[in-house]
Amino acid sequence: MFLRNCWYVAGWCSEITTKPIERTFLGESVALFRTESGKVSALENRCPHRGMPLSAGAVDGEKLRCMYHGLEFDKDGACLRVPGQDRIPKTCAVKSYPLKEQDSLLWIWMGEPSIANPDDVGRYPWHSDPGWRWKGATYTVDCNYELLHDNLLDLSHLGFVHLGTIGGDPESHSNAQMDTVRKGDRVEVVRWMKNVVPPPTFSKGAGLTGRIDRWQEIEFRPGFINIWAGGLPVESDAQNKPRVGGYQSRIFDGITPETETTSHYFWSAAHSYRIDEPGITELHFEHIATAFEEDRIVLSLTQRRLDAAPSKVNVDIKSDVAGLHARRIMQELIAKEQAASPVNANRTPIAAVSLS
Amino acid sequence: MFLRNCWYVAGWCSEITTKPIERTFLGESVALFRTESGKVSALENRCPHRGMPLSAGAVDGEKLRCMYHGLEFDKDGACLRVPGQDRIPKTCAVKSYPLKEQDSLLWIWMGEPSIANPDDVGRYPWHSDPGWRWKGATYTVDCNYELLHDNLLDLSHLGFVHLGTIGGDPESHSNAQMDTVRKGDRVEVVRWMKNVVPPPTFSKGAGLTGRIDRWQEIEFRPGFINIWAGGLPVESDAQNKPRVGGYQSRIFDGITPETETTSHYFWSAAHSYRIDEPGITELHFEHIATAFEEDRIVLSLTQRRLDAAPSKVNVDIKSDVAGLHARRIMQELIAKEQAASPVNANRTPIAAVSLS
Amino acid sequence: MFLRNCWYVAGWCSEITTKPIERTFLGESVALFRTESGKVSALENRCPHRGMPLSAGAVDGEKLRCMYHGLEFDKDGACLRVPGQDRIPKTCAVKSYPLKEQDSLLWIWMGEPSIANPDDVGRYPWHSDPGWRWKGATYTVDCNYELLHDNLLDLSHLGFVHLGTIGGDPESHSNAQMDTVRKGDRVEVVRWMKNVVPPPTFSKGAGLTGRIDRWQEIEFRPGFINIWAGGLPVESDAQNKPRVGGYQSRIFDGITPETETTSHYFWSAAHSYRIDEPGITELHFEHIATAFEEDRIVLSLTQRRLDAAPSKVNVDIKSDVAGLHARRIMQELIAKEQAASPVNANRTPIAAVSLS
Repeated sequence: MFLRNCWYVAGWCSEITTKPIERTFLGESVALFRTESGKVSALENRCPHRGMPLSAGAVDGEKLRCMYHGLEFDKDGACLRVPGQDRIPKTCAVKSYPLKEQDSLLWIWMGEPSIANPDDVGRYPWHSDPGWRWKGATYTVDCNYELLHDNLLDLSHLGFVHLGTIGGDPESHSNAQMDTVRKGDRVEVVRWMKNVVPPPTFSKGAGLTGRIDRWQEIEFRPGFINIWAGGLPVESDAQNKPRVGGYQSRIFDGITPETETTSHYFWSAAHSYRIDEPGITELHFEHIATAFEEDRIVLSLTQRRLDAAPSKVNVDIKSDVAGLHARRIMQELIAKEQAASPVNANRTPIAAVSLS
Repeated sequence: MFLRNCWYVAGWCSEITTKPIERTFLGESVALFRTESGKVSALENRCPHRGMPLSAGAVDGEKLRCMYHGLEFDKDGACLRVPGQDRIPKTCAVKSYPLKEQDSLLWIWMGEPSIANPDDVGRYPWHSDPGWRWKGATYTVDCNYELLHDNLLDLSHLGFVHLGTIGGDPESHSNAQMDTVRKGDRVEVVRWMKNVVPPPTFSKGAGLTGRIDRWQEIEFRPGFINIWAGGLPVESDAQNKPRVGGYQSRIFDGITPETETTSHYFWSAAHSYRIDEPGITELHFEHIATAFEEDRIVLSLTQRRLDAAPSKVNVDIKSDVAGLHARRIMQELIAKEQAASPVNANRTPIAAVSLS
Repeated sequence: MFLRNCWYVAGWCSEITTKPIERTFLGESVALFRTESGKVSALENRCPHRGMPLSAGAVDGEKLRCMYHGLEFDKDGACLRVPGQDRIPKTCAVKSYPLKEQDSLLWIWMGEPSIANPDDVGRYPWHSDPGWRWKGATYTVDCNYELLHDNLLDLSHLGFVHLGTIGGDPESHSNAQMDTVRKGDRVEVVRWMKNVVPPPTFSKGAGLTGRIDRWQEIEFRPGFINIWAGGLPVESDAQNKPRVGGYQSRIFDGITPETETTSHYFWSAAHSYRIDEPGITELHFEHIATAFEEDRIVLSLTQRRLDAAPSKVNVDIKSDVAGLHARRIMQELIAKEQAASPVNANRTPIAAVSLS
């Protein structure tokens, strides 16, 4: 059961070209492409004629031509041409999904199109802030999206899973000062580890060698999570003063369900230190990427164990509080969506309506 | 749901030797082999003793010996020997399937054996006609057999899928003059593309360079499809006069369900041009094989999309008329077979009856 | 349906170290490890917190630490520490399984722990007898455990499957003198093949060249099978006199269900000939291993055929008598276990009880 009425990340703008690609979101296969004039389109990935995936087709001007028998569709899923006949059957159309390009990301709305509001798409200014450099990636993780939420909202695992990169002393994580607040459909977590040894990523990246005050600010919203992590020398009193310099990292985590047990994970790592030095953005990215590879293994192993006994209830501990808030939010939104009509009901293809 | 009372291609005669092979037809695993005197046999591929596949066994004279405990069976599935005892249990026998070798092909009857008539096996004279050379192949395609029927009965896809080989101008395919006739359990399609540029396979193979009149004659019968495709210079008036010379190709397509979502595809490509030149048969075959590899990809992708939403109804267009006739024929024959008794009911093994 | 109240082999003692491993027994994933003081432990392989497999964790002294969030468990599954909090939730514990190390083997009890009696673990003196040398192995076979029982209890297959190693003349196997006796929950089989040519393993290993009297004594108990196989020159009258010298082999076969269609197979091959010559133990092992590889293929092929038609009944022949006894014993024990309460019912984790 997925939350459908939500803006999810579908990919990076740069990934979407006139060569269509296939991605599955919330269990539905979608053809993503850009017309020759640059408009993005997300279509139900099944030609209504014989079922060929439209993502195997070719963009020709503003149209997508099915590879099998040449039927042509516009970016909204309306059929413009059926080779060999003049009449286009009314039902010959495919669903199209609302999209929005913003902050280098392509966002998709898999729910009821009539209530999709592009203004609701979350902003991520660090993708265009001249004080930051960033690099992004597209991962697939073999777990349900909620395991990714849990993972990112409980960073106490850093001291155990990521010792070699972004971890640091396990004790400092266990004893971190943590404030968690739910605000509507958001969760905000602020963690402070005071007077600790910097982890390898901090010292190698930003040259921090002495003891630091270290923070993590995490914001969850349905569809994505922002993290601001950093450290400054103890003497800077970072918790009470403006945080300038030191190690500062902004992580964007776009989490989009692919299936019940797999998730898309579109993430970027931005840094504000040494932004004019060549190679630093890649180095910063690689450190985070190494940690995320460790998480991928952890999450995939965990999913397999949960699959083996799905009814077994997990035991919650103190550090789960933010993850539990997120689960509650998702549950509430899904329940609300299910209660409303006609969301999630089988709808006739959107484009078909405009053709009838 | 398969049509069982039908002669299907089980393989090429040359594939069946004293070394048994396994093939699954209509969901049933079959051991195929030839006895030392040359007789073909198709047995239920499970030793009645402990379930070992008989296809792993060894031919010894006129018998097949199970590899596990040495039980021996004749080509009709009767057990001739149980090592360690004199008595052969009545139930110790395997089903055998009626076979016929003809035109280099081995045909099998998976239905009610008492109504199998070897005279009903379709002829294919181009496998023994001295005016033609041919080469055959054994493919497995990851789709239901009806998608293969659709593919071969609607050649309008040539202009989109097979541009580099047998395709040609998409417009000429879309505008082809097409006559489709159902005759009993057969479908005949005749397509003419007049005054068109020859596709690569025609020009490279038969040296056709100027504009041609091009035809495709397709005949569907349950179990296989014949295609006669060719082209002659426009001035030959091929549609009204005897078709001599030019590019002429005969394609045999034996389509045998393996499972609901996979099919055996035994096909051959014969040509009547340049039959005395070495390498031409291979060249002709390779052109068609390239196109069939393209079809395999298309069909496998399509099957996956249909699997994802099996209840979704396809939209039919004009060029589907022959494919729809074929689907109707299969449906009628299956319904008839299901209505009759004891077809498709669980039967006692054939050989067991003769032993009791 | 498995027999749970039974001592099964979980592995070789030498396999269990402070680096945990994962094995699935009777469908349950288990973390196996040794504490730093050398105690073995078998824990339910799922951290009660977020489901991480404990087998991915690390041993620290007498504790196992979960790799994900650092929860620590003792060898009995009790939680000793939850990072970030003092209180340990009552339900935060994992099931532990009774174990016994004996005769170089680690035995596990997957059933009701309160009735696990370590004195019931079968002995295997040939792993510590100075007159024998042995080598062991850990296999997984893609079949239900009962197919392994059948295989080992009906050695008439040696003449067909293992011609190149331990087989010998098929006729001698078919006509072997065979006595099968059920004694309580055990089955004993004694086979004699008199005045036969020695198989390759016998002649290459023990230098037997003339005709021999050959025996196989097989003992089945739920969980494992012992085989004593050998041959002595005809003139030794081995059946009536003490069996000294010649070729003598002791095979241990620990058979532990992994899933319904896969089994662990822990086996060893011991020999009493040429025990002081280097390389002979390996040579002896390799001969048997070659045969067991042949069996693996046979058993996996058989399982696939049975899976395809699970309701189809096998035909039994004379040589199946011992295997049928074993099946009957397992059936009776499982029925008895199912009738008793609370065996096989969902139990609360063992350790949780001690914590409440």
